[in-house]
Amino acid sequence: MDLNSDLGEGFGIWTLGDDDALLDIVTSANVACGFHAGDPSTMRRVCSSAVSRGVRIGAQVSYRDLAGFGRRRIDVDATTLTDELRYQIGALSAFGPVTYVKPHGALYNTAAVDPVHASAVAAAAAAFGLPVLCQPGSVLARLAAEAGLRVVFEGFVDRGYLPDGRLVPRGTEGAVLTDIPTVTDRAVRMARTGEVVAIDGTVLQLPFESLCVHGDTPGAVSMATAVRTALLAAGLPLSPF
Amino acid sequence: MDLNSDLGEGFGIWTLGDDDALLDIVTSANVACGFHAGDPSTMRRVCSSAVSRGVRIGAQVSYRDLAGFGRRRIDVDATTLTDELRYQIGALSAFGPVTYVKPHGALYNTAAVDPVHASAVAAAAAAFGLPVLCQPGSVLARLAAEAGLRVVFEGFVDRGYLPDGRLVPRGTEGAVLTDIPTVTDRAVRMARTGEVVAIDGTVLQLPFESLCVHGDTPGAVSMATAVRTALLAAGLPLSPF
Amino acid sequence: MDLNSDLGEGFGIWTLGDDDALLDIVTSANVACGFHAGDPSTMRRVCSSAVSRGVRIGAQVSYRDLAGFGRRRIDVDATTLTDELRYQIGALSAFGPVTYVKPHGALYNTAAVDPVHASAVAAAAAAFGLPVLCQPGSVLARLAAEAGLRVVFEGFVDRGYLPDGRLVPRGTEGAVLTDIPTVTDRAVRMARTGEVVAIDGTVLQLPFESLCVHGDTPGAVSMATAVRTALLAAGLPLSPF
Amino acid sequence: MDLNSDLGEGFGIWTLGDDDALLDIVTSANVACGFHAGDPSTMRRVCSSAVSRGVRIGAQVSYRDLAGFGRRRIDVDATTLTDELRYQIGALSAFGPVTYVKPHGALYNTAAVDPVHASAVAAAAAAFGLPVLCQPGSVLARLAAEAGLRVVFEGFVDRGYLPDGRLVPRGTEGAVLTDIPTVTDRAVRMARTGEVVAIDGTVLQLPFESLCVHGDTPGAVSMATAVRTALLAAGLPLSPF
Repeated sequence: MDLNSDLGEGFGIWTLGDDDALLDIVTSANVACGFHAGDPSTMRRVCSSAVSRGVRIGAQVSYRDLAGFGRRRIDVDATTLTDELRYQIGALSAFGPVTYVKPHGALYNTAAVDPVHASAVAAAAAAFGLPVLCQPGSVLARLAAEAGLRVVFEGFVDRGYLPDGRLVPRGTEGAVLTDIPTVTDRAVRMARTGEVVAIDGTVLQLPFESLCVHGDTPGAVSMATAVRTALLAAGLPLSPF
Repeated sequence: MDLNSDLGEGFGIWTLGDDDALLDIVTSANVACGFHAGDPSTMRRVCSSAVSRGVRIGAQVSYRDLAGFGRRRIDVDATTLTDELRYQIGALSAFGPVTYVKPHGALYNTAAVDPVHASAVAAAAAAFGLPVLCQPGSVLARLAAEAGLRVVFEGFVDRGYLPDGRLVPRGTEGAVLTDIPTVTDRAVRMARTGEVVAIDGTVLQLPFESLCVHGDTPGAVSMATAVRTALLAAGLPLSPF
Repeated sequence: MDLNSDLGEGFGIWTLGDDDALLDIVTSANVACGFHAGDPSTMRRVCSSAVSRGVRIGAQVSYRDLAGFGRRRIDVDATTLTDELRYQIGALSAFGPVTYVKPHGALYNTAAVDPVHASAVAAAAAAFGLPVLCQPGSVLARLAAEAGLRVVFEGFVDRGYLPDGRLVPRGTEGAVLTDIPTVTDRAVRMARTGEVVAIDGTVLQLPFESLCVHGDTPGAVSMATAVRTALLAAGLPLSPF
Repeated sequence: MDLNSDLGEGFGIWTLGDDDALLDIVTSANVACGFHAGDPSTMRRVCSSAVSRGVRIGAQVSYRDLAGFGRRRIDVDATTLTDELRYQIGALSAFGPVTYVKPHGALYNTAAVDPVHASAVAAAAAAFGLPVLCQPGSVLARLAAEAGLRVVFEGFVDRGYLPDGRLVPRGTEGAVLTDIPTVTDRAVRMARTGEVVAIDGTVLQLPFESLCVHGDTPGAVSMATAVRTALLAAGLPLSPF
């Protein structure tokens, strides 16, 4: 099983999360490329640290939105968006070998349901022949597959699932799980069997190849550490997909 | 002889110069990379047109300064600058094969005399193993050569030269030549013999491999066309360095 | 009758439209405030020219989107948007007396139909006690009035109208009128009677206090000049609302 | 005596320093205006908190340099810089009454010695009739006074002084003082007598009206608190200049 997390999300003087701690936990690093976060020096440092630890580098591409951290949908046309994403992937490639693409924030959510922006993500990844890391059942997953790209499915160890495989929306009861034993048990089950129990009790069977952990708060790093420890303790080896 | 010019210097809705006209004149295109000008879609279009016409693509790298079009020196440290330049070269690589690096505007002028910023340009080019296009006698030329990079010297067909090989500063008498026959004669002599007559009459012998023409005004395109025509009429073949 | 137009829409080295020509035509200038266009020096120059000619200054506020010229809707929350608009109005106030607010581009279109973004425009204008320039029947018109603001209605002399008073969407037949006599006749009728004939022949009666003309192309300046001339020839005085 | 500090220096998702803690310590808040830090919502929150506590608001103006936090000198011409500073002061005025101007970072250091950039700061402050907060003996102090502006001198409680009244450059021994009792004794003496002992033992007599404290680290907040407590314990009232 692969563990992925968002890294390199500072900008200039401002920092966010603990990149070094995360790089000791994950096997794949989604590195910000400068459009929602991530200045060039941060990109270089994170890529260098990732390479030295055997952590894979992915391009965490975003709408052009530093002020909003890429969390607002922008109604950009598909051609412009494709070009902006190619720009970001190319820029990150200056600092290390980019091995996959994962959209960030609002683009992640939009590409999960909107064929126009999903096709832009797929087209940008296709320009480099890179796999796409996304959610099972998403529009992006379908369009990336149709474009002949490898599609890698990720699960969220600390997020509630709806019976149809989508995430419980943030702000709704059951959206975020914070109890460490609950989350680690869940992570082990997801990694071992691909099963995750939805909020109504439905047992979903999803073809996870990667689990996403967060690291932008002290509590999140503890959680990520616990997940890693639990997976290893369960005899589940961690390695990049 | 190679002919180079700055291209792709629009941004979003704003245009500058006539990229298509220039691409029919030059053999090497210095493509803006987004830091002083050049949005991703413009970069893609210019690179695509360049490739289809056999024009070489160079990364026209700059300080981070959209508001000032890269014309103001920024006292950025060498490490940050190196990373910013690598970022730009990588980004441009997303749209076509980048074959050389040429600094833009204030960075061009600064790297000609300042070892700190010159070393950053050289280091960024070295990260990609790319030649550097610059002025004979510049600090950048020396440091790029010391870094083991190929150094390509360019001449300016419409600028006056001081006896020491530097350009007559803009705003000084003799800085810019506008008479087309004067400029075309000069271009032919520069291309054929490497000679250029300085403002005091000194005949300089400089190892030009490329001549720079401008295209950001209607008059500039006429001049560039005249230079191309004159070189071909003189039996001097044009091809990328 | 008032004539308004968008001005100051260059950025740094890049220009757009002919600000000086427009300032001789209009009575109200919608000045870009730096978020979709408009650097501080351009803002100062336009405001200074407007003041010296008795042209009123309005804040042409936008989403934060230089790369897209404010033409893409951004799903920003109402509080952030309100603050961004207040910032822009305050910034413009540094260069001259701001007497009204008009949203630009995608924000104009969104605020016409979306109560969340319309309320942000109204709240920002209310923070300065400024009138809002907008379309009759728009959500923004309603919310601005409810906020106790003066609402000024504008008509578009060169755009087709639907029977319900909305504009024919761009890209649809009849969206843009280019025949000068047709447009000037229409402008005179709009100014004199408030009537405009919709594409199906319906005669709309709308309480226009301002007519919007464009100036970002040479043809647009000719059209704007013709409209001004026709209104004056018809004995309709032009003055700011 | 006045106590001033830099506030509102986050941007979007990124935070820096503890604005709320500082607002309980200082009497004047140097609020970032969006060019080196400070998004509109942060500006509004800080201004609102300042007003409710009786803390004065100053415009902490900067070079246009989010990526470098305004810490790099930019060779911008005086006219452009003046306009950029006016823009910032105007923008901040949208959120509360701005009562003075203090340049930030590289602009502070440059304006202390460079007449061109100092004149731009003075011209921008003069456009609003605002006092300038700066160092005794600086070029900015002289030019602001010549422009007829009120000049307010500030002292740095935790920085070493050279015998000529300038600060010991950072990175040099004695540049920064970290011992709390040393700093608080020094602050009391500066506030009571205007005296500060330079690194060579010279007793300088400087007309301080404000003392600058920092708050961007946990240790800095403790220091600032200690300075405030010591001044009050010494019977020195704190109030805005």
